[in-house]
This record gives sequence, structure tokens and C-alpha cells, in this order.
Amino acid sequence: MKASRDRWSNNFSEWFDEILWKAGLYDYGRYPVKGCGVWLPYGFQLRRRIVELLRKLLDNRGHEEVLFPILIPEDLLSKEAEHIRGFGGEVFWVTHGGDESLDVKLALRPTSETIISLYENYWLKSYKQLPKKYYQVVSIFRYETKATKPMIRVREVTTFKEAHTAHESFEDADRQVLEALSIYMEFYDLLGVPYLVSKRPDWDKFAGALYTIALDTIMPDGRTMQIGTAHHLGQNFSKPFEIRVQLENENLDFVWQTSYGISERAVASVIAVHGDDRGLVLPPHLAPIQVVIVPIIVRGREAEVLEYASKIKSRLEAKGLRVHLDDRREVGPGAKYYEWEAKGVPVRIEVGSLEVDENTVILVRRDSLEKRKINIEDLEEEVEELTTKIWENIKKKAKEYMEARIWKVKDIREAKNLVSKKLGIVELPWCGRCSCGEKMQELLNLKALGSPVEAIENVELDGEKCPVCNSEAKTVMRLAKTY
Amino acid sequence: MKASRDRWSNNFSEWFDEILWKAGLYDYGRYPVKGCGVWLPYGFQLRRRIVELLRKLLDNRGHEEVLFPILIPEDLLSKEAEHIRGFGGEVFWVTHGGDESLDVKLALRPTSETIISLYENYWLKSYKQLPKKYYQVVSIFRYETKATKPMIRVREVTTFKEAHTAHESFEDADRQVLEALSIYMEFYDLLGVPYLVSKRPDWDKFAGALYTIALDTIMPDGRTMQIGTAHHLGQNFSKPFEIRVQLENENLDFVWQTSYGISERAVASVIAVHGDDRGLVLPPHLAPIQVVIVPIIVRGREAEVLEYASKIKSRLEAKGLRVHLDDRREVGPGAKYYEWEAKGVPVRIEVGSLEVDENTVILVRRDSLEKRKINIEDLEEEVEELTTKIWENIKKKAKEYMEARIWKVKDIREAKNLVSKKLGIVELPWCGRCSCGEKMQELLNLKALGSPVEAIENVELDGEKCPVCNSEAKTVMRLAKTY
Repeated sequence: MKASRDRWSNNFSEWFDEILWKAGLYDYGRYPVKGCGVWLPYGFQLRRRIVELLRKLLDNRGHEEVLFPILIPEDLLSKEAEHIRGFGGEVFWVTHGGDESLDVKLALRPTSETIISLYENYWLKSYKQLPKKYYQVVSIFRYETKATKPMIRVREVTTFKEAHTAHESFEDADRQVLEALSIYMEFYDLLGVPYLVSKRPDWDKFAGALYTIALDTIMPDGRTMQIGTAHHLGQNFSKPFEIRVQLENENLDFVWQTSYGISERAVASVIAVHGDDRGLVLPPHLAPIQVVIVPIIVRGREAEVLEYASKIKSRLEAKGLRVHLDDRREVGPGAKYYEWEAKGVPVRIEVGSLEVDENTVILVRRDSLEKRKINIEDLEEEVEELTTKIWENIKKKAKEYMEARIWKVKDIREAKNLVSKKLGIVELPWCGRCSCGEKMQELLNLKALGSPVEAIENVELDGEKCPVCNSEAKTVMRLAKTY
Repeated sequence: MKASRDRWSNNFSEWFDEILWKAGLYDYGRYPVKGCGVWLPYGFQLRRRIVELLRKLLDNRGHEEVLFPILIPEDLLSKEAEHIRGFGGEVFWVTHGGDESLDVKLALRPTSETIISLYENYWLKSYKQLPKKYYQVVSIFRYETKATKPMIRVREVTTFKEAHTAHESFEDADRQVLEALSIYMEFYDLLGVPYLVSKRPDWDKFAGALYTIALDTIMPDGRTMQIGTAHHLGQNFSKPFEIRVQLENENLDFVWQTSYGISERAVASVIAVHGDDRGLVLPPHLAPIQVVIVPIIVRGREAEVLEYASKIKSRLEAKGLRVHLDDRREVGPGAKYYEWEAKGVPVRIEVGSLEVDENTVILVRRDSLEKRKINIEDLEEEVEELTTKIWENIKKKAKEYMEARIWKVKDIREAKNLVSKKLGIVELPWCGRCSCGEKMQELLNLKALGSPVEAIENVELDGEKCPVCNSEAKTVMRLAKTY
């Protein structure tokens, strides 16, 4: 790696851009349309495993996968007033088909609340059909005017898992938001990516929502990245779209909706949170290749060593592991190590003629780079144990890193002082008023992430005062520099 | 079903439209943008299994899955002259981002040869990297001016598997086209969908290709549907995109390319080819639900029957089968049968109090609707055997149907006579000249599908003459009404 990751410098961004290409994940920056990239084979496999994890979690909780059209006519997108105010400025518009000008211009979906509401109007008739939970994994489009960043801020988000649900009551939708969050928390636990859950301040909620709750993680440079959001939509969409169902008491009422989404930032977070100066460090269960075998070939004993390596491969594959034997002749072992380390393969096995003679293999773990010689008899057991250890270790490291970057402070000065030295999340007591929250943002030149969610986390307050208005604090406000 | 499928009438089209909605596959015809539909949960599951089958076949033959952007700048799409001539008229154009007019208008990809060639120019340097085989599964867009038809002729093709390969030589690309065809033949064999492989006449090849070979199947109304295509692209794209690699002899040369694609017509073909007047008939390995259990509940013995049904479910699930127990109270058994038959579930199990007393179950197979009582001890074995039988039977029926609809004829009059009575494929001796082929189209008011491919099929000719010019036939021309 040219760029050192150096957690406390500003190099993270270069590190990230470099590793995407170097590890064969994502080709970005040379497409003529800004904010669009290409998923390369290795990156695609990683992405696929991550998406499958999320699919399974959603399926297990009664979500049904569907697929809606990409093109949304302008009048449909505009039906909910707040929604179009929020998204209108960043929509790509299709205006022509062939040489013909279209009667109604068509948006490339920025998100699908409107289109799904249109169909829920057709489909939902009775409370007996509720709750109804749909999701799809699709491309969405935002005409970003801010600086774009590969996987993190793009114009074509190629991996948007969006869920949309309908309910009988406000409270049911409330509970659904919590289910969404618990699914997302479980998902990020499975990725080893730590997070904070915060209810976004009112001025920063989703366009058309009653409230928005989000998950943020802290990147190696101390900035936070939003990695998932859940919205209580109230009846804001069901009213203009007239999604009315018969209730148990035979009255008709508009349904209550929620929506929640996760994008390819999930992949970006795995790359960023676990990586190091040599490149990727992948959680073993997500790694496209879990074990790479590098034979060290000395003249005269090529066949023997390769045969030994092949046997190792077969034995590990029989255990269900994804194994690659790197038997290229034209590349030396050093260059191979370098390459597979950049790609984050959890376990490397080195074997040469000495190991053949001794009936041993050398195991190298990617996270700590520790080397150990083991007896070939113990191969399967040792490799399995090692992958478990690697997984525990990288999860723990990521958690510790994040926890050390969250600071509870009492006043603005202390917060300023901290922020001037290093980045992370500062938590200030807060009275709950928007004006005070916005003042904090301004004074610290940070973005307000919002407050903890009661059902998920306890806020311990001991008579603290809001540092802006000096009235009693009701919660805390989290602030950070964000991606 | 309201519309009878009636293979020899013109009702097939109505049958198809009806079953899509009735079986919960696809919601079409009420979206404000023409040619766009919604994949419903059950349809999505069927689509997913079919796509996964295809993925596996491609992965096993060294194809790497990738994902390229959807937006193609006009100048990129126009780089290959034939290509833009072929596609330009049916491209959706994005011209605005928010309120801004874009400098260069962007096409929604109609197919990805140009964009992939752009990257192959970056990536490919040496013959050692060849052959290179990429594929992606994406939405593509065609501003169809013809009448649209759900899943068959749409404006957003939501399920386009497109493969793109690069090779050292013309011959390698030639062989790749054959590999593509053999993958597609295997794929359709796995769907039980019969096909003919024909080299398309020159005037009907893909825009930018040297030649195109396609797979067609025959629909229940006798029209053919193109269900897969493979193209030898020659150096037509590699020259304008300057994809030059170093050969083994150290010369530089442009690569030779192929591309091949299959769309959601694969799903449509499964629905159309196997269905009957009651609805879908699904191949057991593709069915989202393989066995449905319908308990017949008589008052007083509800708990017993349900417990018996649950046990059956567990036992079959333990064998890896996808089983659904339909224990709804408010729906009668008759209505349930009707519903699951429409959805094409291969095996239905009926159990009531009599079966509980006797330790039996009733098995009903979807394809023939035959009923049989079996001993519960033989449950797993009988169900497995039955699914095998169903699969063999529907494959065979589909094949026989298709074979009976292909007619070898000697002259135009005979062909005309046949076509006036029923639809299918007519094969006429052909001299190989375009003008004669086009004349056949005109005289018969059919579309020319092309000729058999030598490496796949033998054409037996015994001095036949081309019925248009009366010179010696070199091959046969296949003609049909097409979708």
C-alpha cells in the first residue's frame, strides 16, 4: 500500500481509494459519469455474501422480496409534498425515448416509497393482510452535487436494500422500526462492524417521515458514517396514495408505514473498519477465499511440494472451506504474500520441501500476521480454530477502537478542545430543543447525529444542563464529522 | 382460470396474462409507465431459483460476475457505428440531474458491450489474461415501440444475464460462442424447456456482431419465442475501443469478443411451456413450494388432524423439501386446491380424520392431477419418487409438443398450407442467399429464424432445391410467427 492507513492522520481516504482497486474490489474514478463505479469479481463476491446475510435476516422475520420498476413518473414521485421537496433536487430525469420526447418525465428511483405506496393501494384491503413487509435489493440514483466517494457517496448506489412495511396502527409501525433496528444491529454484529443507534434530530429526518433512526459507525479517521436508517412514515404516504384498509372494527383507515434501508456502505464499513496498512482484513465467514496456500518451490522437488499442497487443499475443502492454491510459476512467494494480504484472505498456508519432510505446514493469520508451524495431522482443527480466533479478534479490536472514540463531555469548551485534537463522537447533555441542537452544530462545526433510542440504550443523566441554554438536559446529543 | 389455455386457439396470450397475476408472479398492466411490471413475492422466488441455476452454470465454466454502471454517455454508446444504429432508436435518455441540464446525455443501458469494452481497454494487456469471461445480471432498457407484453416484451427488462468475453483469436471467440450455446442448452434442459438452436440470418443479427446464434422455443399458441442469444463480435468493438493485447509472439493485436444473453423470458418460458388450464405446472426443483399440505378438518378432530399434518411437514422438511402447511380456517379445501394448483405446486397432500385413523395420506400430483393413497410409512420415499416422475413427465410432454410443431416441407405451397391451419416452425430447403430467405419470409408472412448450426445439429439434405431460386439447397431455413 502506498497510502498508510495511519488512523490519526488524514490518509484514510487515500487508503480507502487505493485498497478498492488493489484488492480487486471496485474500479472507480475512470468512468466518464461521475459517481459511478464497477464491482470487480472479488468485490462482487464480497458484496454478494454481505447481501445474502441481510436477505436471510429479513426473510427470517417475515419480509418478502419483490422487485419494482426503476422509472417513476414525475407526478407519482411528487404525490407526497415533503418527499419531493427532499429528493427533487437530486433526481436524474429521463426525458426522451429514442428521438421522441416523453409526455411525462421519468425519475430514476431515488428510493421507492411512492411506487410501493401506489401498489399497496391496489393490494391492501383488510387489516388481515397486515403487517405486510416487502423488501428489494436494487440500484437507486442520486444526482449528488457534493464530492462523490467510491461506495460511500455515489450517484448510482448499486446495492440498496430497501424495506417497506404497512401496519394497522401508529404503535405497530413504531414497533416495526424497532424490529428493523434489531435486524440491522444483528446484521452489523455479523459483520463485526460496531455502531451507535441514534434518533436523528428533527431537521435531519427522511423527507416524508415522522422520525428517522440511524446507525453510525466510526471510520479510521474518526469521521462517522451512516450505515443504516429506519423511518416511521406515519400516514404521510398512505393518505395521498389512499391506502385504506378495513380494520377489525370494520372502520376504514389509512395504513401506517415504515421504511428502512442499507446500502453498499455496509461493504465499505467492513473494508474500512477491519483493514490495516497491508490492505483488507476480512471476517472469515465473508471472505471469498478463506485459505490461500502458497507452495515454496525449490528446484527438483516441485512435484512433491505441489502434491502436498493439493492434498491440503482437498482436505480443507472437504470441511467446506473456500481454498485457493496459488501455484503460479512466474510470481515469487513474497509477491504472493503481498497480494493475498491486500485481499484480506484470513489464513495463509506456506509449504515447502522442509514442511513436506517434516509433515508440517506453516499457518499465517492475516489479522496479526503471526506465524505458526503445525503438524499436518492437526490441519483441519487448527485452521478452524484459527478462523474463529481471527473473527473474535477483529470484532473485539473494532469495538475497542470505536468505544475509545466516543467522548462524554459536559460543555462546549471541553468538546472543542477534544475535537481540535482528534475526531470521533462527542456526546453533550441536551435539553431536546432543536435550536440548542443546531447551536451545538454551529459552535463545534460538527454534525448532530441525534440522541440514543430509549428502547435500545439507557441515557444516564445526573442533573446535567444543556450547555447552550443551561436548562435541564433530557438526553444527550451526539455530534461528529460525518461522511 | 378464466382464459382457457387451449393450445390451438389464440387464447394463450390471455391465459399468460391471467396466470401471472393469479399465481402471484407478476403485477403488470397498471403501472403508469408502459412496459414495466412488478415481481411479486412468489414470482420473485421462482425467478431467483432460475437465475441461480444460470449463475452456477456460468461460474462453473470460469465466468466471473461483475457489476457495471447503468448510465452510458452518448458518445460511449455511439463508438461502434452499427451498434448505435441498431439501438439508438430505442434508448431511454437521461438529460437532467435535478434542475440542471446534463452536458452529455446518458443512456439507460440497452446492453453493455460498449461499457465493458471501455474497461477491457483499461484491464487487458496480455494474451496471458485471456480468455476473460465476465457476466452480470441487471436491468436493461428498451424504448419498445411495438406492443409490450409482460415478461416477454418489456421496457425495463429486470433480469438480463449478459456475458461478455475476450479472446486471442477469431477461432477462440468462435469456440466461445459454442460454449455459450452449450451452457444455454444445459440451462434450458434443466428448466425442461425444449429449444431449437439457429444461426440467425445475416439481416437479423445483433447490431455490431459478425453473427448471432439464438435459441427459440415454441409457445402453446405455436409462435416461437427467442430465449437466448450468443454473438461473435469479431473485433468490431475492440478496434474503436482500442482493446489491444500483447500476443505470445509479442505482436500487439485487438482482442476478439463475444457476448451472450438470457432475459426473464427464461421465466416466461417455464410458465408458458409447462402450464395448463388450471395454471402453473412447476418443475419440482424450481418450485418455491414443492409440497403443500391441506388438512381436511372435521369438527371435533381439528387438533389431531393438524398435528398429523405438522408431523408430515417436519418429516418432509427434514428431507430438504420446501413444504407449506395451509392451515387457514376461513378458506375451504376446494378453494385451497384451486389456489395451489394455479401456483403450480408439484405435490399436494390431503389429510383428514380418515387418513389419521388409517395412517395414510393422499398424494395428488399437479401435472396429471392423479390421486393416490399411500401408507404414511412410505411418505418420504413416495414423495421423492413422485417429484422425479413429475419432472420426467413434464419434460417429456414439453419435448413432444415442440417436436410435433416442427415441419420439414419442400415447397412454399406446402408451407403455406400448413401455416394456414396451425402454427409452429416450418423448415424449407435454402440455398443460403439472403434474398431467397427474405423472399420466404414475405411469401409465408413468417419470420426467418435461421439455419441449424453445424457443430450442434446435422442437416440432412438429399439434393433438395431452394424453393425460391431453384438452385441446390445448402441448408434449411426455419420460419415461424414469433413473439
